[in-house]
Amino acid sequence: MADFDLVIVGTGSGNSILDERFAGWRVAVVERGTFGGTCLNVGCIPTKMFVHTAELAAAPSAGAKLGVDAELLGVRWTDVRDRIFGRIDPIAAGGREYRFTHPDNDNVTVFEGTARFTGPHELDIALADGNRTSITGDRVVLAAGGRPVVPDGLENVPFHTSDTVMRLDELPRRMVIVGTGFVAAEFAHVFSSFGVDVTVLGRSGAMLRHEDADISERFTELARKRWDLRLNGTVAGAAQESDGIRVDLTDGSSVSTDVVLVAIGRTPNSDLLNLPAAGVGVTTSGHVVVDRTQRTTAPHVWALGDIASPFELKHVANHEARVVQHNLLHPDAPIDADHRFVPHAVFSSPQVAAVGLTEREAKAQGRRYVTATQEYAGIAYGWAMEDTTGFAKLLADPASGQLIGAHIIGPQASTLIQPLIQAMSFGLDARSMARGQYWIHPAMPELIENALLNLPLD
Amino acid sequence: MADFDLVIVGTGSGNSILDERFAGWRVAVVERGTFGGTCLNVGCIPTKMFVHTAELAAAPSAGAKLGVDAELLGVRWTDVRDRIFGRIDPIAAGGREYRFTHPDNDNVTVFEGTARFTGPHELDIALADGNRTSITGDRVVLAAGGRPVVPDGLENVPFHTSDTVMRLDELPRRMVIVGTGFVAAEFAHVFSSFGVDVTVLGRSGAMLRHEDADISERFTELARKRWDLRLNGTVAGAAQESDGIRVDLTDGSSVSTDVVLVAIGRTPNSDLLNLPAAGVGVTTSGHVVVDRTQRTTAPHVWALGDIASPFELKHVANHEARVVQHNLLHPDAPIDADHRFVPHAVFSSPQVAAVGLTEREAKAQGRRYVTATQEYAGIAYGWAMEDTTGFAKLLADPASGQLIGAHIIGPQASTLIQPLIQAMSFGLDARSMARGQYWIHPAMPELIENALLNLPLD
Repeated sequence: MADFDLVIVGTGSGNSILDERFAGWRVAVVERGTFGGTCLNVGCIPTKMFVHTAELAAAPSAGAKLGVDAELLGVRWTDVRDRIFGRIDPIAAGGREYRFTHPDNDNVTVFEGTARFTGPHELDIALADGNRTSITGDRVVLAAGGRPVVPDGLENVPFHTSDTVMRLDELPRRMVIVGTGFVAAEFAHVFSSFGVDVTVLGRSGAMLRHEDADISERFTELARKRWDLRLNGTVAGAAQESDGIRVDLTDGSSVSTDVVLVAIGRTPNSDLLNLPAAGVGVTTSGHVVVDRTQRTTAPHVWALGDIASPFELKHVANHEARVVQHNLLHPDAPIDADHRFVPHAVFSSPQVAAVGLTEREAKAQGRRYVTATQEYAGIAYGWAMEDTTGFAKLLADPASGQLIGAHIIGPQASTLIQPLIQAMSFGLDARSMARGQYWIHPAMPELIENALLNLPLD
Repeated sequence: MADFDLVIVGTGSGNSILDERFAGWRVAVVERGTFGGTCLNVGCIPTKMFVHTAELAAAPSAGAKLGVDAELLGVRWTDVRDRIFGRIDPIAAGGREYRFTHPDNDNVTVFEGTARFTGPHELDIALADGNRTSITGDRVVLAAGGRPVVPDGLENVPFHTSDTVMRLDELPRRMVIVGTGFVAAEFAHVFSSFGVDVTVLGRSGAMLRHEDADISERFTELARKRWDLRLNGTVAGAAQESDGIRVDLTDGSSVSTDVVLVAIGRTPNSDLLNLPAAGVGVTTSGHVVVDRTQRTTAPHVWALGDIASPFELKHVANHEARVVQHNLLHPDAPIDADHRFVPHAVFSSPQVAAVGLTEREAKAQGRRYVTATQEYAGIAYGWAMEDTTGFAKLLADPASGQLIGAHIIGPQASTLIQPLIQAMSFGLDARSMARGQYWIHPAMPELIENALLNLPLD
């Protein structure tokens, strides 16, 4: 049995922990899937490459009302796909190769397989080549991520998840997307921009229902114009038909389609690790329990990223990896992770970005707050774009002027949110933020400037 | 002779001074051109509407290498023009109407004509209707803006400036743009995106030469691929030909064109006001001299915007208007204008945005500084866009980490600059800015995060 100072399970953000400061450590890295993790291989990176391509495909139809006549002649799906994975796959392969062969990694042993604890420090690894091995780790980092959840009712038909749908052999004519969250919203945008007939099935009454209610409502209203939205229901069953797949819904209706994409959420991979053997606790949602230093209930085990974090966001995982890295190197001076102001974005059309509390959350917490809204249509660049649907909504403490939530739906939302994240993170109040700096006229951040000025502070 | 408590010359930013707090004042407003000023009528607002339209027109050609085949069928120029001015002209007219007829303005008299001082408090106005009148003002605000400069050599041909080129009757086949600054860069982008053959003539060896040299160099390199750039020369003469206009250059070559657009800069309208009669001083560049409170050398006269400011930026004029407003209302507690960190953007393709010092300026001031660059190609969203030419460049004090300059060339530059403006305005150092907040992955602001992390601070 090989003994290690450190075992890292998972090569997404977990892979970024190792640097020259670990040169004297005996390290094991375990990976059961593709090197690089979810974000690089099947998550944020390729999806955004598809999203940008989708925006180019959607541009011609946006021009007509502005006097620009253009026509989408076609999307070369396999060219798009191969360009994207032609860039990504070599990065994943290069990351793997580096760990296996580069002299920097002489102290690192890579195990390709699925690890399970057999004791607090012992892990059994079912290797991808069919063999098994056992290792021990003085310290263990769990960074094994999560995987898509699959609903009942699809047992008899083929279906895709975000793991596979980006590698389709050809663009289907029709797609049914099961789910209404951000993954569903992004793929619905991508495939419909490419000309696919998209139907979205959702259990709830709205898309993006974790967003602030005003954002979710606006997004749903716009989604209804682009996609066949079937809300307040779910999949009752599905069957293969001669010319595709029939999906039956709980309301008695059905949809025929060529491809089914499941996007109802993800579950942490904690269940694969036999965590009780190590004394590592898990929440009811399956997330590994960690304290502020990312330490689990077992003092020699740390966890980070999707396996431990309900955020399921790469920037959070990266932050947590830096915290774990520091705490491994400086056990006597551990630092805390900062989860105060965690932003996120949805790269659909329109884009959505948010940080802090929704109004629903502020209310539930009994916070005193005021809100303000600013429409893109009311700022110069919004006129230029003839945008009539986007807006920013802010929540602030009326006494202190501190921002407690920010929500944007519209062009460049994921960029426009940054000064607000910055203000919240560094305690800059709304009035000072609005008037203590210049806002280029007529650039898009005037949306934020005006939303700030609209806040009815005490 | 009518006497007023306050005379405001110019209805751009000057027009925003009046609010309910001036209800008890007798106010005169003088305007020699179109109500609303440069920005609304012939500046930032319409140009950005054209720029956005140009981006839609340019999108089809950007898609091919990404697997999206689209074709620009045509730009309906008069539809574009009429949509834009169909929105703007009524706003200008509405602003005028409001001052003339709304009960809120019972204390305001509007004079349409050109004002000249005949004494410290006396102004003679040559009215647009051919009459003359004289008024006095206890206090006077000069907000009369500037106008395009016209070079020698074009005496014998018709030419346009930014005042007129957006209202052309038809899209020309060919356009010669004289000038290499931001106005030239924006119009070259607009008209070439619409299919016009653009030639740019410049006295200097680069476009956007007031930008940081690295930005100017990159922009010039890219401009050379889109437009016929004729640098290091100038107009020697021009003549009408049977099928257009021939522009002769100082190097002996010539260019045939349908439209000549002059964009070599602007000059303040201070020369029209007979300022010596009021004791108002002017710099050699023609800008009205003001102190930090925007007061001129005559204690009862204030100035703001392009007539007083070398920035020639609407957001600066608006800020100065708020300062003048406060100082008129609170003469015993005047406030200073803040010109520390004035950003600007060029809405060409690529976009450019900047705040603070260029490297050349930092060097000239003997500042100790370090620089860092981050290419869009090195961040995830830059991959997605397959951007290979954009970058951000930062300058910082190596000891304190304070940012002293930021320069961006590439997509969304005018939005990406905002967190940097905010950091500089509120004294947030580079390291804290990079690591004390989240940056959404994989959103565009990762460009800034990485540029900050690249700074070799002490």
